[in-house]
Amino acid sequence: ARPRVGYFHSGKSRYRVVAEKLNSVLVDSVKSVPIVVNEKSFVYDAVVTMFIEDVGTLFVVREGGLLEGVLSRKDLLKTTLGSHDIHNLPVKVVMTRMPNVVHTTPEETVWLAAKKIIEHEVDALPVVRKVPLEDGSEGLEVIGRLSKTNITRLFVELGEGY
Amino acid sequence: ARPRVGYFHSGKSRYRVVAEKLNSVLVDSVKSVPIVVNEKSFVYDAVVTMFIEDVGTLFVVREGGLLEGVLSRKDLLKTTLGSHDIHNLPVKVVMTRMPNVVHTTPEETVWLAAKKIIEHEVDALPVVRKVPLEDGSEGLEVIGRLSKTNITRLFVELGEGY
Repeated sequence: ARPRVGYFHSGKSRYRVVAEKLNSVLVDSVKSVPIVVNEKSFVYDAVVTMFIEDVGTLFVVREGGLLEGVLSRKDLLKTTLGSHDIHNLPVKVVMTRMPNVVHTTPEETVWLAAKKIIEHEVDALPVVRKVPLEDGSEGLEVIGRLSKTNITRLFVELGEGY
Repeated sequence: ARPRVGYFHSGKSRYRVVAEKLNSVLVDSVKSVPIVVNEKSFVYDAVVTMFIEDVGTLFVVREGGLLEGVLSRKDLLKTTLGSHDIHNLPVKVVMTRMPNVVHTTPEETVWLAAKKIIEHEVDALPVVRKVPLEDGSEGLEVIGRLSKTNITRLFVELGEGY
Protein backbone atom coordinates (compact mmCIF):
# COMPACT_ATOMS: atom_id res chain seq x y z
CA ALA A 1 0.00 0.00 0.00
CA ARG A 2 1.39 3.31 -1.07
CA PRO A 3 1.19 6.13 1.51
CA ARG A 4 -1.18 8.92 0.45
CA VAL A 5 1.19 11.74 1.30
CA GLY A 6 0.64 14.80 -0.88
CA TYR A 7 4.08 14.82 -2.46
CA PHE A 8 4.83 13.61 -5.93
CA HIS A 9 7.84 12.05 -7.50
CA SER A 10 8.79 15.46 -8.84
CA GLY A 11 8.94 16.86 -5.33
CA LYS A 12 6.04 19.20 -5.99
CA SER A 13 3.21 19.35 -3.50
CA ARG A 14 -0.34 18.92 -4.72
CA TYR A 15 -0.92 22.51 -3.67
CA ARG A 16 1.91 23.75 -5.84
CA VAL A 17 0.70 21.84 -8.89
CA VAL A 18 -2.69 23.55 -8.57
CA ALA A 19 -1.20 27.01 -7.99
CA GLU A 20 1.16 26.54 -10.94
CA LYS A 21 -1.71 25.61 -13.24
CA LEU A 22 -3.86 28.56 -12.13
CA ASN A 23 -0.89 30.85 -12.77
CA SER A 24 -0.22 29.44 -16.25
CA VAL A 25 -3.34 30.66 -18.07
CA LEU A 26 -3.01 34.00 -19.86
CA VAL A 27 -5.71 36.66 -20.22
CA ASP A 28 -5.41 36.35 -23.99
CA SER A 29 -6.82 32.81 -23.96
CA VAL A 30 -9.99 33.56 -21.99
CA LYS A 31 -10.84 37.20 -22.79
CA SER A 32 -14.11 38.28 -24.42
CA VAL A 33 -14.87 40.88 -27.05
CA PRO A 34 -15.02 44.37 -25.49
CA ILE A 35 -18.31 46.24 -25.64
CA VAL A 36 -17.62 49.95 -25.99
CA VAL A 37 -19.47 53.25 -26.20
CA ASN A 38 -18.08 56.49 -27.56
CA GLU A 39 -17.10 59.17 -25.07
CA LYS A 40 -19.59 61.51 -26.72
CA SER A 41 -22.58 59.23 -26.15
CA PHE A 42 -25.29 59.68 -23.53
CA VAL A 43 -26.26 57.58 -20.54
CA TYR A 44 -29.43 56.42 -22.31
CA ASP A 45 -27.36 55.00 -25.21
CA ALA A 46 -25.08 53.26 -22.74
CA VAL A 47 -27.98 51.58 -20.93
CA VAL A 48 -29.45 50.43 -24.25
CA THR A 49 -26.05 49.03 -25.32
CA MET A 50 -25.71 47.25 -21.99
CA PHE A 51 -29.03 45.48 -22.52
CA ILE A 52 -28.54 44.70 -26.21
CA GLU A 53 -25.07 43.26 -25.60
CA ASP A 54 -26.06 41.77 -22.23
CA VAL A 55 -22.89 42.79 -20.39
CA GLY A 56 -22.38 44.27 -16.94
CA THR A 57 -19.51 46.59 -17.88
CA LEU A 58 -19.02 49.00 -20.78
CA PHE A 59 -15.78 50.67 -21.78
CA VAL A 60 -15.86 54.28 -22.87
CA VAL A 61 -13.48 55.04 -25.74
CA ARG A 62 -12.43 57.94 -27.89
CA GLU A 63 -11.18 57.89 -31.48
CA GLY A 64 -8.92 54.92 -32.20
CA GLY A 65 -10.61 52.82 -29.52
CA LEU A 66 -8.54 54.49 -26.81
CA LEU A 67 -9.69 53.86 -23.24
CA GLU A 68 -11.27 56.86 -21.53
CA GLY A 69 -13.38 55.27 -18.82
CA VAL A 70 -15.58 52.46 -17.55
CA LEU A 71 -19.33 52.23 -16.85
CA SER A 72 -20.74 49.52 -14.59
CA ARG A 73 -24.35 48.38 -14.12
CA LYS A 74 -24.09 49.93 -10.68
CA ASP A 75 -23.07 53.34 -12.11
CA LEU A 76 -26.01 53.24 -14.52
CA LEU A 77 -28.53 52.07 -11.92
CA LYS A 78 -27.48 54.92 -9.63
CA THR A 79 -27.91 57.39 -12.51
CA THR A 80 -31.31 56.13 -13.66
CA LEU A 81 -32.52 56.38 -10.05
CA GLY A 82 -31.58 60.05 -9.82
CA SER A 83 -33.79 62.64 -11.42
CA HIS A 84 -31.47 62.99 -14.40
CA ASP A 85 -32.54 63.33 -18.00
CA ILE A 86 -30.45 60.37 -19.15
CA HIS A 87 -31.06 61.24 -22.82
CA ASN A 88 -28.98 64.37 -22.38
CA LEU A 89 -26.53 63.27 -19.70
CA PRO A 90 -23.08 62.51 -21.24
CA VAL A 91 -21.49 59.21 -20.14
CA LYS A 92 -18.36 61.22 -19.29
CA VAL A 93 -20.19 62.63 -16.26
CA VAL A 94 -20.91 59.28 -14.64
CA MET A 95 -18.08 57.00 -15.79
CA THR A 96 -14.97 56.11 -13.81
CA ARG A 97 -12.27 57.83 -15.81
CA MET A 98 -8.61 57.30 -16.65
CA PRO A 99 -6.14 57.09 -14.99
CA ASN A 100 -8.35 55.45 -12.34
CA VAL A 101 -9.37 52.54 -14.55
CA VAL A 102 -7.73 49.25 -13.55
CA HIS A 103 -6.80 47.27 -16.65
CA THR A 104 -5.00 44.16 -17.84
CA THR A 105 -3.08 42.99 -20.93
CA PRO A 106 -3.25 39.83 -23.08
CA GLU A 107 0.15 38.74 -21.73
CA GLU A 108 -0.83 39.01 -18.06
CA THR A 109 -1.93 35.86 -16.22
CA VAL A 110 -5.63 35.42 -15.45
CA TRP A 111 -4.55 34.95 -11.85
CA LEU A 112 -3.04 38.45 -11.63
CA ALA A 113 -6.06 39.94 -13.40
CA ALA A 114 -8.39 38.10 -10.98
CA LYS A 115 -6.42 39.56 -8.07
CA LYS A 116 -6.94 43.07 -9.48
CA ILE A 117 -10.69 42.39 -9.86
CA ILE A 118 -10.94 41.36 -6.20
CA GLU A 119 -8.70 44.09 -4.80
CA HIS A 120 -10.34 46.92 -6.73
CA GLU A 121 -13.87 45.51 -6.32
CA VAL A 122 -14.81 45.65 -10.01
CA ASP A 123 -16.68 43.15 -12.17
CA ALA A 124 -14.48 43.35 -15.27
CA LEU A 125 -11.22 44.78 -16.59
CA PRO A 126 -10.53 46.22 -20.03
CA VAL A 127 -7.81 44.26 -21.83
CA VAL A 128 -5.53 46.86 -23.44
CA ARG A 129 -2.38 47.32 -25.46
CA LYS A 130 -0.20 50.42 -25.43
CA VAL A 131 -0.17 52.47 -28.59
CA PRO A 132 2.04 55.48 -29.39
CA LEU A 133 0.11 58.73 -29.87
CA GLU A 134 0.97 61.58 -32.23
CA ASP A 135 1.98 63.85 -29.40
CA GLY A 136 4.64 61.36 -28.30
CA SER A 137 2.63 60.04 -25.31
CA GLU A 138 1.01 56.62 -24.97
CA GLY A 139 -2.64 55.60 -25.17
CA LEU A 140 -4.36 52.35 -24.20
CA GLU A 141 -6.28 50.68 -26.98
CA VAL A 142 -9.14 48.47 -25.73
CA ILE A 143 -8.82 45.02 -27.33
CA GLY A 144 -10.80 42.85 -24.93
CA ARG A 145 -12.73 42.34 -21.72
CA LEU A 146 -11.92 40.08 -18.79
CA SER A 147 -14.78 39.58 -16.31
CA LYS A 148 -15.67 37.45 -13.31
CA THR A 149 -17.71 35.43 -15.80
CA ASN A 150 -14.56 34.53 -17.77
CA ILE A 151 -12.86 33.48 -14.54
CA THR A 152 -15.84 31.42 -13.38
CA ARG A 153 -15.96 29.74 -16.80
CA LEU A 154 -12.22 28.96 -16.57
CA PHE A 155 -12.76 27.53 -13.08
CA VAL A 156 -15.45 25.23 -14.51
CA GLU A 157 -13.23 24.18 -17.45
CA LEU A 158 -10.22 23.38 -15.26
CA GLY A 159 -12.35 21.18 -13.01
CA GLU A 160 -14.17 19.42 -15.84
CA GLY A 161 -14.14 15.66 -16.30
CA TYR A 162 -13.15 14.88 -12.77
CA ALA B 1 -5.71 26.43 -21.32
CA ARG B 2 -4.84 22.83 -22.18
CA PRO B 3 -3.08 20.87 -19.46
CA ARG B 4 0.52 19.95 -20.20
CA VAL B 5 1.06 16.26 -20.46
CA GLY B 6 3.02 14.98 -17.52
CA TYR B 7 2.26 12.01 -15.36
CA PHE B 8 3.33 11.73 -11.78
CA HIS B 9 4.62 8.82 -9.84
CA SER B 10 1.14 8.25 -8.47
CA GLY B 11 -0.24 7.81 -11.95
CA LYS B 12 -2.27 10.99 -11.72
CA SER B 13 -1.89 13.55 -14.44
CA ARG B 14 -1.23 17.16 -13.54
CA TYR B 15 -4.59 17.88 -15.07
CA ARG B 16 -6.33 15.45 -12.75
CA VAL B 17 -4.66 16.88 -9.65
CA VAL B 18 -5.97 20.33 -10.55
CA ALA B 19 -9.47 19.09 -11.37
CA GLU B 20 -9.56 17.09 -8.13
CA LYS B 21 -8.64 20.15 -6.08
CA LEU B 22 -11.20 22.38 -7.80
CA ASN B 23 -13.83 19.74 -7.12
CA SER B 24 -12.94 19.40 -3.44
CA VAL B 25 -14.04 22.82 -2.17
CA LEU B 26 -17.59 23.03 -0.80
CA VAL B 27 -19.99 25.94 -1.10
CA ASP B 28 -20.15 26.13 2.68
CA SER B 29 -16.52 27.22 2.93
CA VAL B 30 -16.71 30.16 0.51
CA LYS B 31 -20.33 31.40 0.73
CA SER B 32 -21.27 34.94 1.80
CA VAL B 33 -24.07 36.25 3.96
CA PRO B 34 -27.33 36.48 1.95
CA ILE B 35 -28.87 39.90 1.46
CA VAL B 36 -32.65 39.57 1.37
CA VAL B 37 -35.76 41.69 0.94
CA ASN B 38 -39.25 40.76 2.02
CA GLU B 39 -41.70 39.67 -0.67
CA LYS B 40 -43.95 42.55 0.35
CA SER B 41 -41.34 45.26 -0.28
CA PHE B 42 -41.22 47.62 -3.24
CA VAL B 43 -38.68 48.00 -6.02
CA TYR B 44 -37.45 51.27 -4.53
CA ASP B 45 -36.59 49.52 -1.23
CA ALA B 46 -34.79 46.78 -3.16
CA VAL B 47 -32.63 49.28 -5.06
CA VAL B 48 -31.75 51.08 -1.82
CA THR B 49 -30.84 47.73 -0.18
CA MET B 50 -28.71 46.81 -3.17
CA PHE B 51 -26.71 50.03 -2.82
CA ILE B 52 -26.42 49.97 0.97
CA GLU B 53 -25.26 46.34 0.97
CA ASP B 54 -23.29 46.74 -2.26
CA VAL B 55 -24.38 43.45 -3.81
CA GLY B 56 -25.47 42.59 -7.34
CA THR B 57 -28.16 40.09 -6.38
CA LEU B 58 -30.95 40.17 -3.78
CA PHE B 59 -33.03 37.24 -2.63
CA VAL B 60 -36.73 37.77 -2.03
CA VAL B 61 -38.05 35.86 0.97
CA ARG B 62 -41.28 35.34 2.85
CA GLU B 63 -41.78 34.59 6.52
CA GLY B 64 -39.16 32.21 7.90
CA GLY B 65 -36.57 33.33 5.35
CA LEU B 66 -38.11 31.07 2.71
CA LEU B 67 -36.96 31.66 -0.86
CA GLU B 68 -39.58 33.27 -3.12
CA GLY B 69 -37.45 34.86 -5.84
CA VAL B 70 -34.31 36.65 -6.98
CA LEU B 71 -33.63 40.23 -8.11
CA SER B 72 -30.55 41.11 -10.14
CA ARG B 73 -29.02 44.52 -10.89
CA LYS B 74 -30.15 43.93 -14.47
CA ASP B 75 -33.79 43.39 -13.37
CA LEU B 76 -33.71 46.60 -11.35
CA LEU B 77 -31.98 48.66 -14.06
CA LYS B 78 -34.62 47.54 -16.56
CA THR B 79 -37.37 48.55 -14.12
CA THR B 80 -35.94 51.98 -13.23
CA LEU B 81 -35.63 52.69 -16.96
CA GLY B 82 -39.30 52.00 -17.56
CA SER B 83 -41.85 54.61 -16.61
CA HIS B 84 -42.78 52.76 -13.44
CA ASP B 85 -43.44 54.32 -10.05
CA ILE B 86 -40.87 52.17 -8.27
CA HIS B 87 -42.11 53.35 -4.85
CA ASN B 88 -45.36 51.48 -5.45
CA LEU B 89 -44.19 48.62 -7.63
CA PRO B 90 -43.94 45.36 -5.63
CA VAL B 91 -40.72 43.36 -6.06
CA LYS B 92 -42.89 40.32 -6.78
CA VAL B 93 -43.76 41.85 -10.17
CA VAL B 94 -40.17 42.06 -11.40
CA MET B 95 -38.34 39.24 -9.62
CA THR B 96 -37.52 35.83 -11.07
CA ARG B 97 -39.74 33.57 -8.99
CA MET B 98 -39.66 30.02 -7.67
CA PRO B 99 -39.50 27.33 -8.97
CA ASN B 100 -37.35 29.05 -11.63
CA VAL B 101 -34.64 30.12 -9.19
CA VAL B 102 -31.44 28.10 -9.56
CA HIS B 103 -29.93 27.42 -6.14
CA THR B 104 -27.18 25.55 -4.34
CA THR B 105 -26.59 23.96 -0.92
CA PRO B 106 -23.70 24.17 1.59
CA GLU B 107 -22.79 20.53 0.81
CA GLU B 108 -22.54 21.03 -2.95
CA THR B 109 -19.09 21.62 -4.50
CA VAL B 110 -18.21 25.12 -5.64
CA TRP B 111 -17.42 23.55 -8.98
CA LEU B 112 -21.00 22.33 -9.47
CA ALA B 113 -22.38 25.67 -8.30
CA ALA B 114 -20.05 27.50 -10.73
CA LYS B 115 -21.33 25.29 -13.54
CA LYS B 116 -24.92 26.29 -12.66
CA ILE B 117 -23.94 29.97 -12.66
CA ILE B 118 -22.44 29.67 -16.15
CA GLU B 119 -25.20 27.49 -17.61
CA HIS B 120 -28.06 29.60 -16.28
CA GLU B 121 -26.28 32.91 -16.92
CA VAL B 122 -26.77 34.34 -13.44
CA ASP B 123 -24.36 36.25 -11.18
CA ALA B 124 -25.15 34.51 -7.90
CA LEU B 125 -27.04 31.58 -6.39
CA PRO B 126 -28.95 31.47 -3.12
CA VAL B 127 -27.49 28.86 -0.77
CA VAL B 128 -30.46 27.03 0.75
CA ARG B 129 -31.49 24.22 3.05
CA LYS B 130 -34.74 22.33 2.89
CA VAL B 131 -37.16 22.87 5.74
CA PRO B 132 -40.44 21.06 6.40
CA LEU B 133 -43.52 23.29 6.21
CA GLU B 134 -46.69 22.99 8.27
CA ASP B 135 -48.70 21.80 5.30
CA GLY B 136 -46.36 18.83 4.87
CA SER B 137 -44.51 20.28 1.86
CA GLU B 138 -40.93 21.58 1.77
CA GLY B 139 -39.58 25.13 1.66
CA LEU B 140 -36.10 26.43 0.93
CA GLU B 141 -34.58 28.57 3.65
CA VAL B 142 -31.98 31.04 2.36
CA ILE B 143 -28.79 30.65 4.42
CA GLY B 144 -26.14 32.12 2.11
CA ARG B 145 -25.10 33.54 -1.22
CA LEU B 146 -22.59 32.18 -3.72
CA SER B 147 -21.53 34.63 -6.43
CA LYS B 148 -18.97 34.95 -9.21
CA THR B 149 -17.06 37.12 -6.74
CA ASN B 150 -16.72 34.18 -4.31
CA ILE B 151 -15.48 31.99 -7.15
CA THR B 152 -13.00 34.62 -8.37
CA ARG B 153 -11.73 35.03 -4.80
CA LEU B 154 -11.31 31.25 -4.48
CA PHE B 155 -9.43 31.21 -7.80
CA VAL B 156 -7.07 33.86 -6.41
CA GLU B 157 -6.59 31.97 -3.12
CA LEU B 158 -5.85 28.63 -4.80
CA GLY B 159 -3.19 30.25 -6.98
CA GLU B 160 -1.61 32.29 -4.18
CA GLY B 161 2.04 31.98 -3.22
CA TYR B 162 3.14 30.47 -6.49
